[in-house]
Amino acid sequence: MEFNKILQQQKEYSLSLLQKDVARLRSEGRDIIDLSIGDPKDVTPDNLKKNLIREVENMTHSQYPVSGGDADYLNSVARWAKRIYNTNLDTKKHIFSCSGTKEAIYKMPMLLDWSNGKKIFIPSLSYPVYEESARVFNVPVVQLPISKESQFLPDLNSISEDIWKTCGLFWINSPHNPTTAIASKAYFEQLLSLAKRFDFLVCSDECYNDIYYTGQPTSCLEFDDSIQWIVFRSLSKRSQMTGLRVGVVISKNEVVMAHLKKMRSAMGVGTPTFIQKVAIPAWDDDISLKKSSEIYKQKRDILLPVLKEKGFQIFGADASFYLWFSHPKLPTSQALYDYFLDHDIVIAPGYAFGSDGEPYARMVYCETIETLEKAKEKISKFRPL
Amino acid sequence: MEFNKILQQQKEYSLSLLQKDVARLRSEGRDIIDLSIGDPKDVTPDNLKKNLIREVENMTHSQYPVSGGDADYLNSVARWAKRIYNTNLDTKKHIFSCSGTKEAIYKMPMLLDWSNGKKIFIPSLSYPVYEESARVFNVPVVQLPISKESQFLPDLNSISEDIWKTCGLFWINSPHNPTTAIASKAYFEQLLSLAKRFDFLVCSDECYNDIYYTGQPTSCLEFDDSIQWIVFRSLSKRSQMTGLRVGVVISKNEVVMAHLKKMRSAMGVGTPTFIQKVAIPAWDDDISLKKSSEIYKQKRDILLPVLKEKGFQIFGADASFYLWFSHPKLPTSQALYDYFLDHDIVIAPGYAFGSDGEPYARMVYCETIETLEKAKEKISKFRPL
Repeated sequence: MEFNKILQQQKEYSLSLLQKDVARLRSEGRDIIDLSIGDPKDVTPDNLKKNLIREVENMTHSQYPVSGGDADYLNSVARWAKRIYNTNLDTKKHIFSCSGTKEAIYKMPMLLDWSNGKKIFIPSLSYPVYEESARVFNVPVVQLPISKESQFLPDLNSISEDIWKTCGLFWINSPHNPTTAIASKAYFEQLLSLAKRFDFLVCSDECYNDIYYTGQPTSCLEFDDSIQWIVFRSLSKRSQMTGLRVGVVISKNEVVMAHLKKMRSAMGVGTPTFIQKVAIPAWDDDISLKKSSEIYKQKRDILLPVLKEKGFQIFGADASFYLWFSHPKLPTSQALYDYFLDHDIVIAPGYAFGSDGEPYARMVYCETIETLEKAKEKISKFRPL
Repeated sequence: MEFNKILQQQKEYSLSLLQKDVARLRSEGRDIIDLSIGDPKDVTPDNLKKNLIREVENMTHSQYPVSGGDADYLNSVARWAKRIYNTNLDTKKHIFSCSGTKEAIYKMPMLLDWSNGKKIFIPSLSYPVYEESARVFNVPVVQLPISKESQFLPDLNSISEDIWKTCGLFWINSPHNPTTAIASKAYFEQLLSLAKRFDFLVCSDECYNDIYYTGQPTSCLEFDDSIQWIVFRSLSKRSQMTGLRVGVVISKNEVVMAHLKKMRSAMGVGTPTFIQKVAIPAWDDDISLKKSSEIYKQKRDILLPVLKEKGFQIFGADASFYLWFSHPKLPTSQALYDYFLDHDIVIAPGYAFGSDGEPYARMVYCETIETLEKAKEKISKFRPL
């Protein structure tokens, strides 16, 4: 048998490799604190468990999920979008459920015809799934350089018209993983206007948009009259529901949505209905959501001062649950990684996110407060550089 | 934007169209019995609900599912395979969990390199997902004719050596949807020996293998020393768990499994851990499984005699929950469909499953006994032909 060559070339997911490091070191007896994966470790809220139990109790017979999503679930998303962004959504045409946004993001390259030479535009530092899926589906990628100088966002003005003409999909992720950069409303305006002019689709991965400390970051959902965007929203991070695998895809481009729904109907990607039902109160509950941001801020503030004290330079940090930082005396992301590991803390080196990851590293603060306090203690005892 | 041309050509999933018919007729006030979709309608077993509630109560924090599957879940599958088929499986190398077999089946064309001219072999009547996924991934398909004369299985002896040389993947589904045909042990032996000789992979979709009335149908799992097969097993039908989306993929070909696991790690297809935990007792429980077959036999026997009485010719019917039939006076599958619809019963016309579907139709008997008794009543009053 000859295997798919792209798969053979594919490296193992960098963050999975870190997880193996963690497991190995722990088995050697090291007291490792793992701050490398954005998987919230807070106790599952009691009301979420109560809702899950109620849905199971109400289950009469276990049926296939309805293609596109449960009507009540889609309605709760439409209510939320109206309430928060004043966006008017038709649940039949503009929304479908997904089993976590990762699976929906992965399949986006399948939507378009790429025989015309179009490409997928990705920031040079990104959630790895954008690039991996482009590669698997054999779509050429344009890496848009991002750096401290560009505020960790692609510089839209530096891209020539000839390059814009080759754009099919443009991935934007604001607040940005790993750098926490936030794109302004003006940035989105410019991007959507370019998308209209050059006929490309802005894929807006907004999974961190509900975790913020200085005003809610701009969402494509604010652009009610644009058909150039498709938005991916997740309950995983904002509502501590990573383990339930439920999210939503939204666009006012009805042709795009009709094609995606048709594509997905044969894929077997429906989310169990009882899980969608449990997600309804999560979309409806703005109060818990606000509280969740407050808790993340509290967590950020456990680590931020001690890192600054030790000479780390921290960028952004006004949203999401990541800290993106460098240190003048540690010239590579590997050096940062090694220095933390020497003190029993695992972080994600910048190179795991792309070519412009040097000399940075990412630390998550979605662990429990207890663990973060322990991490603070360890950092305060870092040997001098 | 130019959309994927294959998607644009793709017809809507035939069975989804039938569902739209059902909804329309019901909204017109017709008392329609829908026997077109294989989605068991029995009451969700109490112990399944109890197990679900226990898992939710035990949930401490909601985390991403482990790539490849929960260790306890994989162990329960290994125990089951040893107990039922005497197959020895290494949970790390030979098994991974999937979110229902549909999603795993859909992705199989991505495993291999198709630039060498290899093709996917599919029976001319099949579960539509085999062909749809081949088309989406641009892999040529060889339709193997099946008919009453070939006992609704592809005639392996009629395929020339030159054709065999082009085989990359071979889909077999025994018991077969829609015809209920069962491949014998000798048939599998011949197929696996051809697979070894011509270096192709037998994809064995065995989602109906646990529902049988005259001895358990052969499974690839019985061929413990072969690395030519990959098996897809589902809990949906056998354990009334369609709504939970949990299944398993098994192969002793460690290279195939390593490639698939690598491929799937970026896809976001993990099954929520608490659902995998709930599936463990289902794999362990042979007694409920046997009872489930007995109930399906009872259901089959509600419809079988009345259909025979009305002159329908029924094929197989020794496994799964389908009846595949024709009528000497109804020369097309559309005529069969229309005749049933005149009497307020929706069945699936044979053409929905492929080119050799004439002049047959498929009826499911996974509805409740009450509904099936009502259907029997309706059939007994069919106007004479």
